[in-house]
Amino acid sequence: MQHSPKVRRLSSLLSRLPGVGEKTAQRYVLYLLTADPEIAKDLGRELATLHEELRPCERCGNVAEVIAGESPVLCVVCKDAKRDPHLLCVVGRVHDLLAIERTGAMRGRYFVLGRLLSPLEGVGPEELPLPRLVARIREEGVKEVIVATPPSVDGEATALLLKRELAPHGVTLTRIASGVPHGGDLEYADPITMGRALAGRQSL
Amino acid sequence: MQHSPKVRRLSSLLSRLPGVGEKTAQRYVLYLLTADPEIAKDLGRELATLHEELRPCERCGNVAEVIAGESPVLCVVCKDAKRDPHLLCVVGRVHDLLAIERTGAMRGRYFVLGRLLSPLEGVGPEELPLPRLVARIREEGVKEVIVATPPSVDGEATALLLKRELAPHGVTLTRIASGVPHGGDLEYADPITMGRALAGRQSL
Repeated sequence: MQHSPKVRRLSSLLSRLPGVGEKTAQRYVLYLLTADPEIAKDLGRELATLHEELRPCERCGNVAEVIAGESPVLCVVCKDAKRDPHLLCVVGRVHDLLAIERTGAMRGRYFVLGRLLSPLEGVGPEELPLPRLVARIREEGVKEVIVATPPSVDGEATALLLKRELAPHGVTLTRIASGVPHGGDLEYADPITMGRALAGRQSL
Repeated sequence: MQHSPKVRRLSSLLSRLPGVGEKTAQRYVLYLLTADPEIAKDLGRELATLHEELRPCERCGNVAEVIAGESPVLCVVCKDAKRDPHLLCVVGRVHDLLAIERTGAMRGRYFVLGRLLSPLEGVGPEELPLPRLVARIREEGVKEVIVATPPSVDGEATALLLKRELAPHGVTLTRIASGVPHGGDLEYADPITMGRALAGRQSL
């Protein structure tokens, strides 16, 4: 059976979502068709206005609500006066920022790079917002920069680049720990993770 | 960090989709926020008009395109004059109809029940559209009804109910085969599946 153009258009848009293939997209369409029509309508309305109501925070790149009359657009972390302005955590993506926020352990603010250095995908240093980062460190008198890029090839390359670029600015640079995850089994840890866990050992 | 009401509203709508939890919904929102704004807009537009452009086929319950001036709303299968009107396949959901259509082996038409008999969830025979099914069998002179409900407890209960209700109407009733799936390993087949494969054996 051939699908109607409407189903094809909607499926193809839904399959742009991360981890959604053709079959899952079709399942979503069928769900939306058979469920209460209000769900599709509400979702349609929310999506149509998404980029009008939410924007990247102009200071850190986190998701920020656009509030009429308020400029610049700032996120809740940047607006939070209780955050330590001297502590800055550099992450690759907003997802990573949210993961760190969930710990409740971060007292400082953030800087979202938006992408990682990736020689394989042709992303060079000039494509990272380093001038903006450096300007922010200077203007806000940042003392410590926590490099929280992921412990992957690209994440490590980005961390090394940040070390090279930020060292001359007199800030303390730290890197999040890499090791065996909580609840993880040493037997099944890959050699790189196990090696990092050993190298990063701390006094008991 | 607290999410903005907009993110919460959109996440909660997205997590209504089948198999989508809070975390996946948040991933979708972040993707839509960081991707080309046109994607969210297009998706919003398609969803807002979904139920105006697509409706259940008035004859079989399959997804059908609403075409201006055309009434009743019929799906491509019901409109296909080459289908055998005497062969009717009864399925639980549109998903199952699509799975059967993908085989290309179905010469007849369909009837979508919309739900299965489920004593545990309190779905009784009176909640299935049996009068419409019986009327259709009579009006269209259906000779064979293929019961293609799933080989689950609810699916089998529904099949038995259909047998009881349709037998007096003089149609041949058949049931799709249940057994070890293609590529499946006998060693790992559960006893019920293996038992069905044995009971349903056919001459070589």
